[in-house]
Amino acid sequence: MGEVALSTTTTVQVRFSEVDSMQVVWHGVYVRYFEDGREAFGRTYPGIGYMDFYHNGYTAPIVDLQVQYIAPLTVNDTATVETRYIASDAAKLCFEYTVRRDRDGAVVARGSSMQVFVEAGGEMSLNTPAFYEAWKQKWLKR
Amino acid sequence: MGEVALSTTTTVQVRFSEVDSMQVVWHGVYVRYFEDGREAFGRTYPGIGYMDFYHNGYTAPIVDLQVQYIAPLTVNDTATVETRYIASDAAKLCFEYTVRRDRDGAVVARGSSMQVFVEAGGEMSLNTPAFYEAWKQKWLKR
Amino acid sequence: MGEVALSTTTTVQVRFSEVDSMQVVWHGVYVRYFEDGREAFGRTYPGIGYMDFYHNGYTAPIVDLQVQYIAPLTVNDTATVETRYIASDAAKLCFEYTVRRDRDGAVVARGSSMQVFVEAGGEMSLNTPAFYEAWKQKWLKR
Amino acid sequence: MGEVALSTTTTVQVRFSEVDSMQVVWHGVYVRYFEDGREAFGRTYPGIGYMDFYHNGYTAPIVDLQVQYIAPLTVNDTATVETRYIASDAAKLCFEYTVRRDRDGAVVARGSSMQVFVEAGGEMSLNTPAFYEAWKQKWLKR
Repeated sequence: MGEVALSTTTTVQVRFSEVDSMQVVWHGVYVRYFEDGREAFGRTYPGIGYMDFYHNGYTAPIVDLQVQYIAPLTVNDTATVETRYIASDAAKLCFEYTVRRDRDGAVVARGSSMQVFVEAGGEMSLNTPAFYEAWKQKWLKR
Repeated sequence: MGEVALSTTTTVQVRFSEVDSMQVVWHGVYVRYFEDGREAFGRTYPGIGYMDFYHNGYTAPIVDLQVQYIAPLTVNDTATVETRYIASDAAKLCFEYTVRRDRDGAVVARGSSMQVFVEAGGEMSLNTPAFYEAWKQKWLKR
Repeated sequence: MGEVALSTTTTVQVRFSEVDSMQVVWHGVYVRYFEDGREAFGRTYPGIGYMDFYHNGYTAPIVDLQVQYIAPLTVNDTATVETRYIASDAAKLCFEYTVRRDRDGAVVARGSSMQVFVEAGGEMSLNTPAFYEAWKQKWLKR
Repeated sequence: MGEVALSTTTTVQVRFSEVDSMQVVWHGVYVRYFEDGREAFGRTYPGIGYMDFYHNGYTAPIVDLQVQYIAPLTVNDTATVETRYIASDAAKLCFEYTVRRDRDGAVVARGSSMQVFVEAGGEMSLNTPAFYEAWKQKWLKR
């Protein structure tokens, strides 16, 4: 039994309000696109969405975010966000992202995020929460 | 004893990310400016901020919002938001707003908002909550 | 020949970042949803999108925006935005919006917007621009 | 003559709409705070703001963004953004950021950004643009 690579893709439509005065999507908007990707991932592999954390007594704040910008998106563009789960033995939740412009397939951005698990009292969990371990067993080990 | 007109002003600095591809502040941003105005009002006349509602067992959602756009704001502009409390006997919280461009004093937008009081169970309150009545007594009747 | 009522619907997925600390979609987000609706309308009835205005030497700024909030949207909700074109002989572009929550069909918000046509020099056009008149002929008179 | 370390600080007021359903400022908002910091830096050391790039025939898009999140900000918090210019011989513009919570001085986030210079034709400039070299001479070499 090996580890399965999990990933999903989702499409985002550039909104007029996301385009800045230089006629390209403002760089901060990609944080939303990554979140769209993460949420789509959570719908495909249920159990690790914001509300799942919450119902299990945890929050899972982002502690590290990295974005590399390669090419622009502009008005009327659609883009495809590929979200890849990066397996780890640590009590962390790591994703990598690739955003491609649909009109020509060009990669416009890459990035990564890391989340940790925080208990209701505000303490960071050093051990993998049981619900996340169960999720891993279900989806990763086949 | 008459009713006192309550108002405050606060300054907003246009952010680069708030300017759209037509080189003017995107119209939806003014909703934030109004909220900045409302929050500034709440700091000057404490007792009716979001957290005050919450601690008294209420939320106070916006039920009506109106904006008239008269002139544009652009990159590097600052503007002054005047927020006026509109007294009413109903269980409502009403404000009017005027946004002026600082470089020439031109009125760039006007607007209004209306909030109602919703109890923890989700029911809209038809009577003025006690904490709001107390706030009125303190600030309006002099 | 009568006037044809033009409308479109589009679906919006609530983003985690759109939900405020009261657990509901922040009221300013609906301005984006209305714009999503307007853009979807423009894709169905091409010729009156932001870029069409621009290429014809005009901008079409929003001059009036009204929103009535009736019920909340929350995390994981999807909603359907119905955008209706309101015909007028004036040099204006008017839309009405109805936002329905998909899980139960409840109307969560209604609203309207009015745009005028501004020429490159910054003057508001009192006459209907030719490209908009042509659009009206194509889509409204059947 | 040595290189002078340039930095500025600016205060940000957390907006209600920036706080997410977990009661903390949504992580994407820090991109705005960094931009607030960069704009404040540009007002203190004029010549390298978005409009300066533009008037010299360049844009300076962000190509790399990194954020580490250490502690939360919440409703009613104010924070101080320290923005430090990182000198480099390459045709790049690099900043580092530290965001501190005003109520207790705690560092809530750190980050960095890198911008390159793109000419009107869309080509990335490998050489330092003259206006940026002049800015460096003025502010860095004392």
